[in-house]
Amino acid sequence: MPAGMAAFSQGEYDRRIAKTRRAMEAAGLDAIFVTDPSNMAWLTGYDGWSFYVHQGVILTGEGAPHWWGRGMDSNGARRTVWMEDENIHAYADHYVQSTTDHPMEDLCALMARLGLAGARIGVEMENYYYSAKAHAVIVAGMGNARIEDATALVNWQRTVKSDEELDFMRRAARIAEKVMQVAIERAAPGVRKNDLVADILHAGITGVGEDWGDYTAIVPMTPSGLDATAAHLTWDGREMRAGEATFFELAGCYWRYHTPICRTVHLGKTPQKMRDASEALNEGLAAGIEAARAGNRACDVANALGAALEKAGIKRGARCGYPIGLSYPPDWGERTISFRDTDETVLEPGMTFHFMPGIWMDDWGLETTEPMLITPDGPAEPFCSIPRQIFEK
Amino acid sequence: MPAGMAAFSQGEYDRRIAKTRRAMEAAGLDAIFVTDPSNMAWLTGYDGWSFYVHQGVILTGEGAPHWWGRGMDSNGARRTVWMEDENIHAYADHYVQSTTDHPMEDLCALMARLGLAGARIGVEMENYYYSAKAHAVIVAGMGNARIEDATALVNWQRTVKSDEELDFMRRAARIAEKVMQVAIERAAPGVRKNDLVADILHAGITGVGEDWGDYTAIVPMTPSGLDATAAHLTWDGREMRAGEATFFELAGCYWRYHTPICRTVHLGKTPQKMRDASEALNEGLAAGIEAARAGNRACDVANALGAALEKAGIKRGARCGYPIGLSYPPDWGERTISFRDTDETVLEPGMTFHFMPGIWMDDWGLETTEPMLITPDGPAEPFCSIPRQIFEK
Repeated sequence: MPAGMAAFSQGEYDRRIAKTRRAMEAAGLDAIFVTDPSNMAWLTGYDGWSFYVHQGVILTGEGAPHWWGRGMDSNGARRTVWMEDENIHAYADHYVQSTTDHPMEDLCALMARLGLAGARIGVEMENYYYSAKAHAVIVAGMGNARIEDATALVNWQRTVKSDEELDFMRRAARIAEKVMQVAIERAAPGVRKNDLVADILHAGITGVGEDWGDYTAIVPMTPSGLDATAAHLTWDGREMRAGEATFFELAGCYWRYHTPICRTVHLGKTPQKMRDASEALNEGLAAGIEAARAGNRACDVANALGAALEKAGIKRGARCGYPIGLSYPPDWGERTISFRDTDETVLEPGMTFHFMPGIWMDDWGLETTEPMLITPDGPAEPFCSIPRQIFEK
Repeated sequence: MPAGMAAFSQGEYDRRIAKTRRAMEAAGLDAIFVTDPSNMAWLTGYDGWSFYVHQGVILTGEGAPHWWGRGMDSNGARRTVWMEDENIHAYADHYVQSTTDHPMEDLCALMARLGLAGARIGVEMENYYYSAKAHAVIVAGMGNARIEDATALVNWQRTVKSDEELDFMRRAARIAEKVMQVAIERAAPGVRKNDLVADILHAGITGVGEDWGDYTAIVPMTPSGLDATAAHLTWDGREMRAGEATFFELAGCYWRYHTPICRTVHLGKTPQKMRDASEALNEGLAAGIEAARAGNRACDVANALGAALEKAGIKRGARCGYPIGLSYPPDWGERTISFRDTDETVLEPGMTFHFMPGIWMDDWGLETTEPMLITPDGPAEPFCSIPRQIFEK
């Protein structure tokens, strides 16, 4: 066993591997090749900002997983994964961002050495870190294998969190509360947005007590006024102004585990239409949390929210939540379940969501959201405790 | 024209479009569909953290480009791009991270409306934001079109920077100097790494004077001791220790334009082997900068470095530089030219690189690097002025 930084117990990794193998068996797969950094980390402990080059984890029907990546990152694998050195495979640097050689040529040779030349192999066709070109090279290079789409196969195994994972998320939740408090406290007319974001990031990375802050998979979203009509604008150097609302879409992150949360600040007296919307939104959040029970479906949460908003004349039209946990950029969602009226996934105890009903109107935006845990009985348990309101300053 | 935040003059955007169209013509393409967020921003000004869902820009042979993306992000497009509203196209939210519907179905319909049903269309097959699945849906949905690989076609147009872009990079360089100074000043035995990173991020986002800091496409790399043998480990909550070297791989970022730079700090007396390596590295850097002249080739820089290192008995084996400028996560390189012995690209005035010869040995790591500009005559001009040395504290 290496001197690595693998964050979880071996029992936890064994549980994950066994669960994933059951899913592989159900899908008729001999092996999977996963490139989603979150899936790589969940299976092996691997942690590094190396996902901008090709890398992945191979899991077959037996033995430990295989880490495969760029030579200069294999040292990082040795420092972070729980497997022995012989399960760490490096490719040469001439493959990196080359216009003539592709790293997947090296991967094909490795898969052949692992006895997978004629195997059924699942790949993550819908992933940021599995390009169309990578797939083409693998399909061409593994002529006798069957390459099948196993998108989100591992992600689905991650939906129910273990106690070890929930412990990480609760630590992240304390950090999330801290960053949101900083955002609310420091927001004021005349404050440059980038200075506010600097304070938010400082608070988040400093963390809470011994719980150090990790980088979040999405940077702080902090748009004001008309910019808050858009969901995903980042900051610039303009000053905050009286009469404008700003929403803060932030997260705490502890060792790659996220707890995101959103609140809205209004500088000066809040217009009546926003107060009305906030009241309806709070009713919807309460109804959704009430509906987010083990045995209910994802759509039940969306419908409970929708009914409350509709009474107030607000039509959203977008999904209102997604699973959260271990994540790498560019998304802190897990890309499996969606809180939307067509998603009939049954909720299970230990699932964790960001219940995220942002409202983006023509000339203002409002976000009050809750990260929450599905419990064995009763409504969902919010991870954070920050009053649900527009913070008027 | 919208009230947007397009950062550059219309003349600059016109230059970019014309240059890209010449490359399209040379490649025999009627249109390109680009999903690289840097290419999208470079062509249209679009700026938002929305690349975790499918989106892109279509450029045909005439008229303004078309922005295409998720409904809730079209407001962000209206706020940031230079085109009129009719060139902003939104897809419905039920496509988002759905297991049954794919956003590219909507894109195919749009391309047909734009008259591209039988066209030769270039796509970026090797890109984080163009999945294997997305490609499969497009190929299936555009049966009469020819879908061709146009990876890096736009990236190559970005290699030579305009004066407007260089102005942004020089602002980013001042921020880079500031963050490196903070890192060097605050590093000390007993300082938790996350607290140091919090200070680094705070300094970077605060920026310099009116030049606000933007998020960098890679988070700070700050590994110490044995962790510094690995290229891409991020931080945790452990304290810095006497007797250990830490390398800082940081960047300043102004409005998405990056200037990365690396330096190494040693807490306590630096071992002779590291001092020797640093001296050889400095000779190599000087020789490489001298060789980085317009008319010389990328490999000339790599070979000049390699010769100096080899004299000192150091074999690197990895590329030692890449182009820099406008970038989004997960990479601040432009993924075109590489400083390596096989890359014969001729250097042109206005090209900008991170000359990045990191050294990762068995039990220590050392990084001294320079962001630099190829000038019309003479050696490359470093963007930053920080002494090239191991900072001993």
